[in-house]
Amino acid sequence: MSDNTVASASPTPLTLLGLGAMGAALARTWLAAGHPLTVWNRSPGKAAELAAAGARVAATAAEAVAASPLVVTCLLDDASVREALAEADLTGKDLVDLTTSTPAESRTRAAWANERGARFLDGGIMAVPPMIGVPEAGGYVFYSGSREVFDAHRETLAVPVATRYVGADPGFAALHDVALLSAMTAMFAGARHAAALVADAGIDQKEFGTLVADWLAAMAPATAAYAGGPVPEDPTSAAVAEAGDAALLRTAEEQGVGTALLVASAGAMNGV
Amino acid sequence: MSDNTVASASPTPLTLLGLGAMGAALARTWLAAGHPLTVWNRSPGKAAELAAAGARVAATAAEAVAASPLVVTCLLDDASVREALAEADLTGKDLVDLTTSTPAESRTRAAWANERGARFLDGGIMAVPPMIGVPEAGGYVFYSGSREVFDAHRETLAVPVATRYVGADPGFAALHDVALLSAMTAMFAGARHAAALVADAGIDQKEFGTLVADWLAAMAPATAAYAGGPVPEDPTSAAVAEAGDAALLRTAEEQGVGTALLVASAGAMNGV
Repeated sequence: MSDNTVASASPTPLTLLGLGAMGAALARTWLAAGHPLTVWNRSPGKAAELAAAGARVAATAAEAVAASPLVVTCLLDDASVREALAEADLTGKDLVDLTTSTPAESRTRAAWANERGARFLDGGIMAVPPMIGVPEAGGYVFYSGSREVFDAHRETLAVPVATRYVGADPGFAALHDVALLSAMTAMFAGARHAAALVADAGIDQKEFGTLVADWLAAMAPATAAYAGGPVPEDPTSAAVAEAGDAALLRTAEEQGVGTALLVASAGAMNGV
Repeated sequence: MSDNTVASASPTPLTLLGLGAMGAALARTWLAAGHPLTVWNRSPGKAAELAAAGARVAATAAEAVAASPLVVTCLLDDASVREALAEADLTGKDLVDLTTSTPAESRTRAAWANERGARFLDGGIMAVPPMIGVPEAGGYVFYSGSREVFDAHRETLAVPVATRYVGADPGFAALHDVALLSAMTAMFAGARHAAALVADAGIDQKEFGTLVADWLAAMAPATAAYAGGPVPEDPTSAAVAEAGDAALLRTAEEQGVGTALLVASAGAMNGV
Protein backbone atom coordinates (compact mmCIF):
# COMPACT_ATOMS: atom_id res chain seq x y z
CA MET A 1 0.00 0.00 0.00
CA SER A 2 1.44 3.36 -0.99
CA ASP A 3 0.74 6.22 1.37
CA ASN A 4 1.72 9.43 -0.34
CA THR A 5 -1.24 11.38 1.02
CA VAL A 6 -0.57 15.09 0.97
CA ALA A 7 -0.97 16.32 4.52
CA SER A 8 -2.46 19.70 3.86
CA ALA A 9 -2.33 22.54 6.32
CA SER A 10 -5.81 23.65 5.25
CA PRO A 11 -8.68 21.66 3.74
CA THR A 12 -8.44 21.09 -0.05
CA PRO A 13 -10.75 23.25 -2.17
CA LEU A 14 -13.01 21.29 -4.52
CA THR A 15 -15.85 21.59 -6.99
CA LEU A 16 -19.00 19.46 -6.89
CA LEU A 17 -21.36 19.10 -9.86
CA GLY A 18 -24.78 17.73 -8.92
CA LEU A 19 -26.94 18.75 -5.96
CA GLY A 20 -29.54 16.01 -5.75
CA ALA A 21 -30.16 14.35 -2.38
CA MET A 22 -26.77 12.60 -2.51
CA GLY A 23 -24.78 15.55 -3.88
CA ALA A 24 -26.29 17.90 -1.30
CA ALA A 25 -25.42 15.47 1.51
CA LEU A 26 -21.81 15.26 0.28
CA ALA A 27 -21.63 19.06 -0.01
CA ARG A 28 -22.83 19.59 3.54
CA THR A 29 -20.12 17.35 5.01
CA TRP A 30 -17.33 19.02 2.99
CA LEU A 31 -18.54 22.46 4.01
CA ALA A 32 -18.83 21.39 7.65
CA ALA A 33 -15.23 20.14 7.50
CA GLY A 34 -14.06 23.52 6.23
CA HIS A 35 -13.36 22.66 2.56
CA PRO A 36 -13.77 25.63 0.20
CA LEU A 37 -16.53 24.29 -2.07
CA THR A 38 -17.80 25.44 -5.45
CA VAL A 39 -21.09 23.86 -6.52
CA TRP A 40 -23.20 23.72 -9.66
CA ASN A 41 -26.52 22.09 -10.49
CA ARG A 42 -28.47 22.16 -13.77
CA SER A 43 -31.59 23.33 -11.90
CA PRO A 44 -31.29 25.48 -8.73
CA GLY A 45 -31.58 22.30 -6.58
CA LYS A 46 -30.26 22.86 -3.06
CA ALA A 47 -27.92 25.68 -4.18
CA ALA A 48 -29.47 28.36 -1.94
CA GLU A 49 -29.21 26.17 1.18
CA LEU A 50 -25.59 25.32 0.37
CA ALA A 51 -24.71 28.95 -0.40
CA ALA A 52 -26.01 29.85 3.06
CA ALA A 53 -23.69 27.17 4.44
CA GLY A 54 -20.70 28.76 2.66
CA ALA A 55 -20.62 27.20 -0.81
CA ARG A 56 -19.80 29.29 -3.86
CA VAL A 57 -22.50 28.69 -6.47
CA ALA A 58 -21.18 28.77 -10.05
CA ALA A 59 -23.41 29.92 -12.91
CA THR A 60 -22.19 27.26 -15.32
CA ALA A 61 -20.55 23.84 -15.02
CA ALA A 62 -17.51 25.17 -16.92
CA GLU A 63 -17.10 27.98 -14.40
CA ALA A 64 -17.43 25.50 -11.53
CA VAL A 65 -14.77 23.23 -13.04
CA ALA A 66 -12.42 26.20 -13.53
CA ALA A 67 -12.66 27.02 -9.82
CA SER A 68 -10.82 23.95 -8.39
CA PRO A 69 -8.18 21.40 -9.42
CA LEU A 70 -10.34 18.64 -7.85
CA VAL A 71 -13.74 18.16 -9.50
CA VAL A 72 -16.35 15.69 -8.18
CA THR A 73 -19.43 14.76 -10.22
CA CYS A 74 -22.55 13.24 -8.66
CA LEU A 75 -25.15 13.41 -11.41
CA LEU A 76 -28.14 11.42 -12.64
CA ASP A 77 -26.31 9.12 -15.05
CA ASP A 78 -23.26 8.88 -17.27
CA ALA A 79 -24.92 10.86 -20.08
CA SER A 80 -25.46 13.75 -17.61
CA VAL A 81 -21.73 13.75 -16.82
CA ARG A 82 -20.79 13.98 -20.50
CA GLU A 83 -23.28 16.79 -21.08
CA ALA A 84 -22.35 18.77 -17.97
CA LEU A 85 -18.65 18.65 -18.81
CA ALA A 86 -19.05 19.28 -22.55
CA GLU A 87 -17.92 22.94 -22.40
CA ALA A 88 -15.51 22.62 -19.47
CA ASP A 89 -11.72 22.78 -19.73
CA LEU A 90 -10.50 19.61 -17.98
CA THR A 91 -6.79 20.19 -18.57
CA GLY A 92 -4.83 19.32 -15.42
CA LYS A 93 -7.99 18.46 -13.44
CA ASP A 94 -8.50 15.49 -11.16
CA LEU A 95 -11.98 14.25 -12.04
CA VAL A 96 -13.76 11.98 -9.52
CA ASP A 97 -17.06 10.62 -10.87
CA LEU A 98 -19.49 9.36 -8.21
CA THR A 99 -22.36 9.05 -10.70
CA THR A 100 -23.89 5.55 -10.88
CA SER A 101 -22.73 3.99 -14.14
CA THR A 102 -21.91 0.64 -15.72
CA PRO A 103 -18.33 -0.69 -15.88
CA ALA A 104 -18.18 -0.03 -19.65
CA GLU A 105 -19.49 3.52 -19.25
CA SER A 106 -16.85 4.22 -16.56
CA ARG A 107 -14.05 2.90 -18.79
CA THR A 108 -15.26 5.08 -21.68
CA ARG A 109 -15.55 8.11 -19.41
CA ALA A 110 -11.99 7.50 -18.12
CA ALA A 111 -10.55 7.43 -21.65
CA TRP A 112 -12.60 10.51 -22.57
CA ALA A 113 -11.33 12.40 -19.49
CA ASN A 114 -7.72 11.39 -20.17
CA GLU A 115 -7.97 12.62 -23.79
CA ARG A 116 -9.11 15.97 -22.42
CA GLY A 117 -6.12 16.22 -20.09
CA ALA A 118 -7.70 15.06 -16.80
CA ARG A 119 -6.81 12.20 -14.46
CA PHE A 120 -9.88 10.05 -13.73
CA LEU A 121 -11.10 8.19 -10.66
CA ASP A 122 -14.49 6.48 -10.67
CA GLY A 123 -16.54 5.96 -7.53
CA GLY A 124 -19.59 3.84 -6.66
CA ILE A 125 -21.44 4.96 -3.54
CA MET A 126 -22.56 2.18 -1.16
CA ALA A 127 -24.82 4.38 0.94
CA VAL A 128 -28.08 6.28 0.85
CA PRO A 129 -28.03 10.04 1.56
CA PRO A 130 -28.93 9.70 5.29
CA MET A 131 -25.73 7.61 5.75
CA ILE A 132 -23.44 10.41 4.48
CA GLY A 133 -21.46 12.04 7.29
CA VAL A 134 -22.50 9.24 9.68
CA PRO A 135 -19.47 6.89 9.84
CA GLU A 136 -21.25 4.44 12.17
CA ALA A 137 -23.90 3.84 9.45
CA GLY A 138 -21.33 1.71 7.63
CA GLY A 139 -21.54 3.30 4.18
CA TYR A 140 -18.53 3.58 1.88
CA VAL A 141 -17.50 4.34 -1.68
CA PHE A 142 -15.77 1.89 -4.03
CA TYR A 143 -13.05 3.69 -6.03
CA SER A 144 -11.17 2.50 -9.10
CA GLY A 145 -9.05 4.09 -11.81
CA SER A 146 -6.19 6.50 -11.12
CA ARG A 147 -4.39 5.41 -7.94
CA GLU A 148 -2.59 8.77 -8.00
CA VAL A 149 -5.85 10.70 -7.77
CA PHE A 150 -7.08 8.41 -4.98
CA ASP A 151 -3.84 8.84 -2.99
CA ALA A 152 -3.66 12.60 -3.55
CA HIS A 153 -7.22 13.17 -2.33
CA ARG A 154 -8.00 10.26 -0.01
CA GLU A 155 -8.38 12.52 3.04
CA THR A 156 -10.80 14.82 1.22
CA LEU A 157 -12.72 11.88 -0.27
CA ALA A 158 -13.02 10.23 3.15
CA VAL A 159 -14.71 13.28 4.70
CA PRO A 160 -18.31 12.36 3.75
CA VAL A 161 -18.00 8.56 3.75
CA ALA A 162 -15.36 5.81 4.01
CA THR A 163 -13.34 4.78 0.94
CA ARG A 164 -12.33 1.43 -0.64
CA TYR A 165 -9.95 1.40 -3.61
CA VAL A 166 -10.57 -1.75 -5.68
CA GLY A 167 -8.22 -1.46 -8.65
CA ALA A 168 -6.72 0.51 -11.53
CA ASP A 169 -9.42 -0.65 -13.97
CA PRO A 170 -11.80 2.34 -14.03
CA GLY A 171 -14.71 -0.12 -14.47
CA PHE A 172 -14.10 -1.98 -11.21
CA ALA A 173 -15.79 0.51 -8.87
CA ALA A 174 -18.98 0.41 -10.97
CA LEU A 175 -18.78 -3.37 -11.22
CA HIS A 176 -18.58 -3.73 -7.42
CA ASP A 177 -21.19 -1.03 -6.89
CA VAL A 178 -23.73 -2.51 -9.31
CA ALA A 179 -23.13 -6.08 -8.13
CA LEU A 180 -23.83 -5.20 -4.49
CA LEU A 181 -26.77 -2.97 -5.37
CA SER A 182 -28.23 -5.78 -7.50
CA ALA A 183 -27.99 -8.22 -4.58
CA MET A 184 -29.64 -5.65 -2.30
CA THR A 185 -32.41 -5.06 -4.83
CA ALA A 186 -33.23 -8.78 -4.88
CA MET A 187 -33.22 -8.87 -1.06
CA PHE A 188 -35.59 -5.88 -0.86
CA ALA A 189 -37.84 -7.50 -3.49
CA GLY A 190 -37.87 -10.70 -1.41
CA ALA A 191 -39.08 -8.69 1.58
CA ARG A 192 -41.85 -7.16 -0.56
CA HIS A 193 -42.85 -10.63 -1.79
CA ALA A 194 -43.03 -11.81 1.84
CA ALA A 195 -45.21 -8.83 2.73
CA ALA A 196 -47.50 -9.52 -0.22
CA LEU A 197 -47.95 -13.15 0.92
CA VAL A 198 -49.24 -12.12 4.36
CA ALA A 199 -50.98 -8.91 3.29
CA ASP A 200 -54.56 -10.12 3.76
CA ALA A 201 -53.94 -12.60 6.60
CA GLY A 202 -54.60 -10.28 9.53
CA ILE A 203 -51.00 -10.47 10.74
CA ASP A 204 -49.45 -7.47 12.52
CA GLN A 205 -47.43 -5.90 9.69
CA LYS A 206 -44.89 -4.11 11.83
CA GLU A 207 -44.06 -7.22 13.85
CA PHE A 208 -43.86 -9.19 10.63
CA GLY A 209 -41.44 -6.64 9.14
CA THR A 210 -39.16 -7.11 12.13
CA LEU A 211 -39.32 -10.92 11.76
CA VAL A 212 -38.29 -10.64 8.12
CA ALA A 213 -35.47 -8.18 8.82
CA ASP A 214 -34.11 -10.28 11.71
CA TRP A 215 -34.25 -13.46 9.62
CA LEU A 216 -32.47 -11.85 6.65
CA ALA A 217 -29.83 -10.34 8.94
CA ALA A 218 -29.29 -13.80 10.49
CA MET A 219 -28.97 -15.46 7.08
CA ALA A 220 -26.96 -12.68 5.36
CA PRO A 221 -23.59 -14.19 6.36
CA ALA A 222 -24.53 -17.30 4.36
CA THR A 223 -24.58 -15.19 1.18
CA ALA A 224 -20.77 -14.99 1.31
CA ALA A 225 -20.69 -18.56 -0.03
CA TYR A 226 -23.25 -17.84 -2.75
CA ALA A 227 -21.38 -14.70 -3.86
CA GLY A 228 -17.88 -16.11 -3.39
CA GLY A 229 -17.66 -18.94 -5.85
CA PRO A 230 -18.36 -22.62 -5.18
CA VAL A 231 -21.28 -23.07 -2.81
CA PRO A 232 -20.37 -25.40 0.09
CA GLU A 233 -22.08 -28.77 0.32
CA ASP A 234 -25.52 -28.51 1.90
CA PRO A 235 -26.80 -31.41 3.99
CA THR A 236 -30.24 -30.74 2.47
CA SER A 237 -30.89 -33.30 -0.26
CA ALA A 238 -31.91 -32.22 -3.76
CA ALA A 239 -35.36 -33.76 -3.19
CA VAL A 240 -35.91 -31.72 -0.02
CA ALA A 241 -34.73 -28.52 -1.72
CA GLU A 242 -37.04 -29.20 -4.66
CA ALA A 243 -40.01 -29.88 -2.36
CA GLY A 244 -39.24 -26.64 -0.49
CA ASP A 245 -39.09 -24.57 -3.69
CA ALA A 246 -42.38 -26.13 -4.80
CA ALA A 247 -44.04 -25.14 -1.51
CA LEU A 248 -42.91 -21.53 -2.01
CA LEU A 249 -44.43 -21.49 -5.50
CA ARG A 250 -47.70 -23.14 -4.41
CA THR A 251 -48.04 -20.71 -1.49
CA ALA A 252 -47.61 -17.71 -3.80
CA GLU A 253 -50.35 -19.13 -6.02
CA GLU A 254 -52.62 -19.80 -3.00
CA GLN A 255 -52.13 -16.23 -1.77
CA GLY A 256 -52.58 -14.64 -5.20
CA VAL A 257 -49.01 -13.31 -5.37
CA GLY A 258 -46.93 -13.40 -8.57
CA THR A 259 -44.29 -16.13 -8.87
CA ALA A 260 -41.89 -14.26 -11.18
CA LEU A 261 -39.45 -13.43 -8.38
CA LEU A 262 -39.33 -17.06 -7.17
CA VAL A 263 -38.89 -18.40 -10.69
CA ALA A 264 -36.15 -15.86 -11.45
CA SER A 265 -34.47 -16.63 -8.10
CA ALA A 266 -34.38 -20.34 -8.91
CA GLY A 267 -32.91 -19.43 -12.29
CA ALA A 268 -30.18 -17.27 -10.73
CA MET A 269 -29.30 -20.06 -8.29
CA ASN A 270 -28.87 -22.39 -11.26
CA GLY A 271 -26.77 -19.89 -13.19
CA VAL A 272 -29.45 -19.02 -15.75
CA MET B 1 -49.84 -15.52 27.67
CA SER B 2 -50.99 -18.78 29.23
CA ASP B 3 -48.31 -20.86 30.91
CA ASN B 4 -49.80 -24.22 31.72
CA THR B 5 -46.67 -26.14 30.77
CA VAL B 6 -46.60 -29.57 32.37
CA ALA B 7 -43.40 -29.74 34.41
CA SER B 8 -42.54 -33.38 33.94
CA ALA B 9 -40.32 -35.30 36.29
CA SER B 10 -38.84 -37.20 33.34
CA PRO B 11 -38.51 -36.21 29.68
CA THR B 12 -41.66 -36.79 27.57
CA PRO B 13 -41.54 -39.82 25.27
CA LEU B 14 -42.25 -39.04 21.63
CA THR B 15 -42.34 -40.48 18.13
CA LEU B 16 -40.64 -38.93 15.11
CA LEU B 17 -41.51 -39.83 11.53
CA GLY B 18 -38.87 -38.79 9.01
CA LEU B 19 -35.10 -39.17 9.31
CA GLY B 20 -33.74 -36.93 6.58
CA ALA B 21 -31.00 -34.45 7.50
CA MET B 22 -33.45 -32.31 9.51
CA GLY B 23 -35.32 -35.20 11.18
CA ALA B 24 -32.05 -36.87 12.18
CA ALA B 25 -30.78 -33.60 13.67
CA LEU B 26 -33.99 -33.22 15.70
CA ALA B 27 -33.77 -36.87 16.84
CA ARG B 28 -30.20 -36.48 18.05
CA THR B 29 -31.08 -33.51 20.29
CA TRP B 30 -34.12 -35.26 21.83
CA LEU B 31 -32.07 -38.39 22.50
CA ALA B 32 -29.25 -36.32 23.99
CA ALA B 33 -31.79 -34.65 26.31
CA GLY B 34 -33.00 -38.05 27.52
CA HIS B 35 -36.36 -38.22 25.72
CA PRO B 36 -37.49 -41.80 24.99
CA LEU B 37 -37.74 -41.65 21.18
CA THR B 38 -39.38 -43.94 18.66
CA VAL B 39 -38.39 -43.28 15.05
CA TRP B 40 -39.51 -44.39 11.62
CA ASN B 41 -38.35 -43.62 8.10
CA ARG B 42 -39.65 -44.96 4.79
CA SER B 43 -36.12 -45.95 3.78
CA PRO B 44 -33.53 -46.99 6.43
CA GLY B 45 -32.18 -43.39 6.47
CA LYS B 46 -30.19 -42.65 9.61
CA ALA B 47 -32.08 -45.29 11.65
CA ALA B 48 -29.01 -47.37 12.52
CA GLU B 49 -27.09 -44.34 13.80
CA LEU B 50 -30.07 -43.23 15.89
CA ALA B 51 -30.68 -46.75 17.23
CA ALA B 52 -27.07 -46.76 18.43
CA ALA B 53 -27.85 -43.46 20.20
CA GLY B 54 -30.83 -45.06 21.99
CA ALA B 55 -33.81 -44.63 19.63
CA ARG B 56 -36.34 -47.39 19.20
CA VAL B 57 -36.76 -48.03 15.46
CA ALA B 58 -40.32 -48.98 14.47
CA ALA B 59 -40.98 -51.27 11.52
CA THR B 60 -44.00 -49.30 10.31
CA ALA B 61 -45.30 -45.74 10.70
CA ALA B 62 -48.46 -47.12 12.38
CA GLU B 63 -46.34 -48.94 14.96
CA ALA B 64 -44.29 -45.79 15.56
CA VAL B 65 -47.43 -43.70 16.08
CA ALA B 66 -48.83 -46.28 18.51
CA ALA B 67 -45.69 -45.98 20.67
CA SER B 68 -46.21 -42.38 21.94
CA PRO B 69 -49.01 -39.87 22.63
CA LEU B 70 -46.86 -37.14 21.00
CA VAL B 71 -46.09 -37.68 17.31
CA VAL B 72 -43.83 -35.36 15.28
CA THR B 73 -43.63 -35.57 11.49
CA CYS B 74 -40.71 -34.14 9.50
CA LEU B 75 -41.21 -35.56 6.01
CA LEU B 76 -40.59 -34.49 2.42
CA ASP B 77 -43.91 -32.78 1.77
CA ASP B 78 -47.56 -32.76 2.82
CA ALA B 79 -48.41 -35.73 0.57
CA SER B 80 -45.75 -37.77 2.39
CA VAL B 81 -47.44 -36.97 5.73
CA ARG B 82 -50.82 -38.15 4.47
CA GLU B 83 -49.30 -41.35 3.06
CA ALA B 84 -47.19 -42.13 6.12
CA LEU B 85 -50.16 -41.74 8.48
CA ALA B 86 -52.70 -43.52 6.25
CA GLU B 87 -52.73 -46.73 8.31
CA ALA B 88 -52.03 -45.17 11.73
CA ASP B 89 -54.55 -44.83 14.56
CA LEU B 90 -54.42 -41.15 15.49
CA THR B 91 -57.09 -41.31 18.21
CA GLY B 92 -56.00 -39.24 21.21
CA LYS B 93 -52.67 -38.30 19.63
CA ASP B 94 -51.02 -34.89 19.62
CA LEU B 95 -49.72 -34.50 16.07
CA VAL B 96 -47.03 -31.89 15.41
CA ASP B 97 -46.21 -31.50 11.71
CA LEU B 98 -42.84 -29.89 10.94
CA THR B 99 -43.02 -30.77 7.26
CA THR B 100 -42.73 -27.78 4.89
CA SER B 101 -46.21 -27.12 3.50
CA THR B 102 -48.42 -24.33 2.23
CA PRO B 103 -50.97 -22.58 4.49
CA ALA B 104 -53.87 -24.31 2.70
CA GLU B 105 -52.22 -27.72 2.99
CA SER B 106 -51.68 -27.19 6.72
CA ARG B 107 -55.32 -26.21 7.25
CA THR B 108 -56.48 -29.29 5.36
CA ARG B 109 -54.11 -31.53 7.34
CA ALA B 110 -55.39 -30.01 10.61
CA ALA B 111 -59.02 -30.80 9.72
CA TRP B 112 -58.01 -34.29 8.57
CA ALA B 113 -56.14 -34.94 11.83
CA ASN B 114 -59.04 -33.66 13.93
CA GLU B 115 -61.50 -35.93 12.07
CA ARG B 116 -59.26 -38.83 12.98
CA GLY B 117 -59.24 -37.93 16.66
CA ALA B 118 -55.93 -36.06 16.94
CA ARG B 119 -55.09 -32.55 18.07
CA PHE B 120 -52.95 -30.76 15.45
CA LEU B 121 -50.10 -28.27 15.68
CA ASP B 122 -48.26 -27.16 12.54
CA GLY B 123 -44.65 -26.06 12.55
CA GLY B 124 -42.39 -24.25 10.05
CA ILE B 125 -38.69 -24.63 10.72
CA MET B 126 -36.56 -21.48 10.34
CA ALA B 127 -33.21 -23.23 10.44
CA VAL B 128 -30.99 -25.56 8.46
CA PRO B 129 -29.93 -28.87 10.05
CA PRO B 130 -26.55 -27.57 11.35
CA MET B 131 -28.47 -24.97 13.43
CA ILE B 132 -30.46 -27.64 15.33
CA GLY B 133 -29.28 -28.04 18.93
CA VAL B 134 -27.21 -24.85 18.61
CA PRO B 135 -29.29 -22.12 20.33
CA GLU B 136 -26.77 -19.39 19.53
CA ALA B 137 -27.29 -20.05 15.77
CA GLY B 138 -30.60 -18.19 16.08
CA GLY B 139 -32.90 -20.77 14.48
CA TYR B 140 -36.50 -21.25 15.58
CA VAL B 141 -39.78 -22.90 14.60
CA PHE B 142 -43.02 -21.05 13.88
CA TYR B 143 -45.98 -22.93 15.40
CA SER B 144 -49.69 -22.45 14.79
CA GLY B 145 -52.85 -24.46 15.37
CA SER B 146 -53.74 -26.08 18.69
CA ARG B 147 -52.58 -23.83 21.53
CA GLU B 148 -53.24 -26.74 23.91
CA VAL B 149 -50.75 -28.96 22.11
CA PHE B 150 -48.19 -26.15 22.04
CA ASP B 151 -48.59 -25.46 25.76
CA ALA B 152 -48.57 -29.15 26.73
CA HIS B 153 -45.35 -29.84 24.84
CA ARG B 154 -43.51 -26.54 24.66
CA GLU B 155 -40.59 -27.79 26.77
CA THR B 156 -40.16 -30.86 24.56
CA LEU B 157 -40.55 -28.83 21.37
CA ALA B 158 -37.96 -26.30 22.56
CA VAL B 159 -35.28 -28.96 23.04
CA PRO B 160 -33.92 -28.93 19.48
CA VAL B 161 -34.65 -25.29 18.55
CA ALA B 162 -36.50 -22.23 19.91
CA THR B 163 -40.27 -21.90 19.42
CA ARG B 164 -42.60 -19.05 18.31
CA TYR B 165 -46.37 -19.58 18.46
CA VAL B 166 -48.06 -17.33 15.86
CA GLY B 167 -51.77 -18.15 16.11
CA ALA B 168 -54.62 -20.65 16.24
CA ASP B 169 -54.99 -20.68 12.44
CA PRO B 170 -53.14 -23.89 11.47
CA GLY B 171 -52.04 -22.16 8.25
CA PHE B 172 -50.16 -19.31 9.95
CA ALA B 173 -46.96 -21.22 10.72
CA ALA B 174 -46.62 -22.24 7.07
CA LEU B 175 -47.48 -18.71 5.94
CA HIS B 176 -44.75 -17.19 8.12
CA ASP B 177 -42.31 -19.97 7.21
CA VAL B 178 -42.81 -19.69 3.46
CA ALA B 179 -42.81 -15.88 3.51
CA LEU B 180 -39.44 -15.71 5.28
CA LEU B 181 -37.96 -18.52 3.18
CA SER B 182 -39.13 -16.74 0.01
CA ALA B 183 -37.39 -13.53 1.10
CA MET B 184 -34.22 -15.50 1.88
CA THR B 185 -34.36 -17.24 -1.49
CA ALA B 186 -34.45 -13.88 -3.29
CA MET B 187 -31.52 -12.63 -1.16
CA PHE B 188 -29.46 -15.74 -1.98
CA ALA B 189 -30.35 -15.34 -5.66
CA GLY B 190 -29.21 -11.72 -5.50
CA ALA B 191 -25.85 -12.88 -4.16
CA ARG B 192 -25.54 -15.38 -7.04
CA HIS B 193 -26.40 -12.64 -9.53
CA ALA B 194 -23.67 -10.44 -8.00
CA ALA B 195 -21.18 -13.33 -8.26
CA ALA B 196 -22.14 -13.90 -11.91
CA LEU B 197 -21.52 -10.21 -12.71
CA VAL B 198 -17.92 -10.32 -11.45
CA ALA B 199 -17.19 -13.93 -12.44
CA ASP B 200 -14.79 -13.18 -15.29
CA ALA B 201 -13.36 -9.89 -14.00
CA GLY B 202 -10.34 -11.28 -12.14
CA ILE B 203 -11.66 -10.19 -8.75
CA ASP B 204 -10.80 -12.26 -5.65
CA GLN B 205 -14.00 -14.28 -5.22
CA LYS B 206 -13.65 -14.96 -1.51
CA GLU B 207 -13.06 -11.28 -0.70
CA PHE B 208 -15.98 -10.36 -2.93
CA GLY B 209 -18.24 -12.86 -1.13
CA THR B 210 -17.41 -11.17 2.16
CA LEU B 211 -18.15 -7.72 0.68
CA VAL B 212 -21.58 -8.92 -0.48
CA ALA B 213 -22.42 -10.60 2.84
CA ASP B 214 -21.34 -7.57 4.87
CA TRP B 215 -23.34 -5.23 2.63
CA LEU B 216 -26.49 -7.37 2.82
CA ALA B 217 -26.14 -7.69 6.59
CA ALA B 218 -25.79 -3.90 6.86
CA MET B 219 -28.86 -3.32 4.68
CA ALA B 220 -31.03 -6.16 6.10
CA PRO B 221 -32.55 -3.91 8.82
CA ALA B 222 -33.97 -1.74 6.01
CA THR B 223 -36.08 -4.70 4.83
CA ALA B 224 -38.32 -4.28 7.90
CA ALA B 225 -39.94 -1.32 6.15
CA TYR B 226 -40.36 -3.19 2.85
CA ALA B 227 -41.89 -6.20 4.62
CA GLY B 228 -43.92 -4.23 7.17
CA GLY B 229 -46.36 -2.25 5.13
CA PRO B 230 -45.93 1.32 3.85
CA VAL B 231 -42.36 2.01 2.77
CA PRO B 232 -41.01 5.20 4.40
CA GLU B 233 -40.30 8.17 2.19
CA ASP B 234 -36.93 7.90 0.48
CA PRO B 235 -34.99 11.09 -0.22
CA THR B 236 -33.95 9.45 -3.52
CA SER B 237 -36.03 10.93 -6.33
CA ALA B 238 -37.94 8.70 -8.74
CA ALA B 239 -35.61 9.82 -11.54
CA VAL B 240 -32.52 8.78 -9.56
CA ALA B 241 -34.08 5.42 -8.64
CA GLU B 242 -34.99 4.80 -12.28
CA ALA B 243 -31.49 5.72 -13.47
CA GLY B 244 -30.04 3.35 -10.86
CA ASP B 245 -32.28 0.45 -11.92
CA ALA B 246 -31.33 1.10 -15.55
CA ALA B 247 -27.62 0.92 -14.67
CA LEU B 248 -28.16 -2.47 -12.99
CA LEU B 249 -29.90 -3.79 -16.11
CA ARG B 250 -27.28 -2.40 -18.53
CA THR B 251 -24.47 -3.85 -16.40
CA ALA B 252 -26.07 -7.31 -16.46
CA GLU B 253 -26.28 -7.05 -20.26
CA GLU B 254 -22.65 -5.85 -20.52
CA GLN B 255 -21.48 -8.76 -18.37
CA GLY B 256 -23.61 -11.37 -20.17
CA VAL B 257 -25.74 -12.14 -17.09
CA GLY B 258 -29.50 -12.72 -17.31
CA THR B 259 -31.77 -9.85 -16.29
CA ALA B 260 -34.77 -11.95 -15.16
CA LEU B 261 -34.00 -11.51 -11.44
CA LEU B 262 -33.69 -7.71 -11.77
CA VAL B 263 -36.88 -7.46 -13.82
CA ALA B 264 -38.78 -9.65 -11.35
CA SER B 265 -37.35 -7.66 -8.41
CA ALA B 266 -38.59 -4.40 -9.93
CA GLY B 267 -41.97 -6.07 -10.41
CA ALA B 268 -42.12 -7.21 -6.78
CA MET B 269 -41.20 -3.71 -5.58
CA ASN B 270 -44.10 -2.36 -7.62
CA GLY B 271 -46.53 -4.96 -6.32
CA VAL B 272 -46.73 -7.00 -9.53
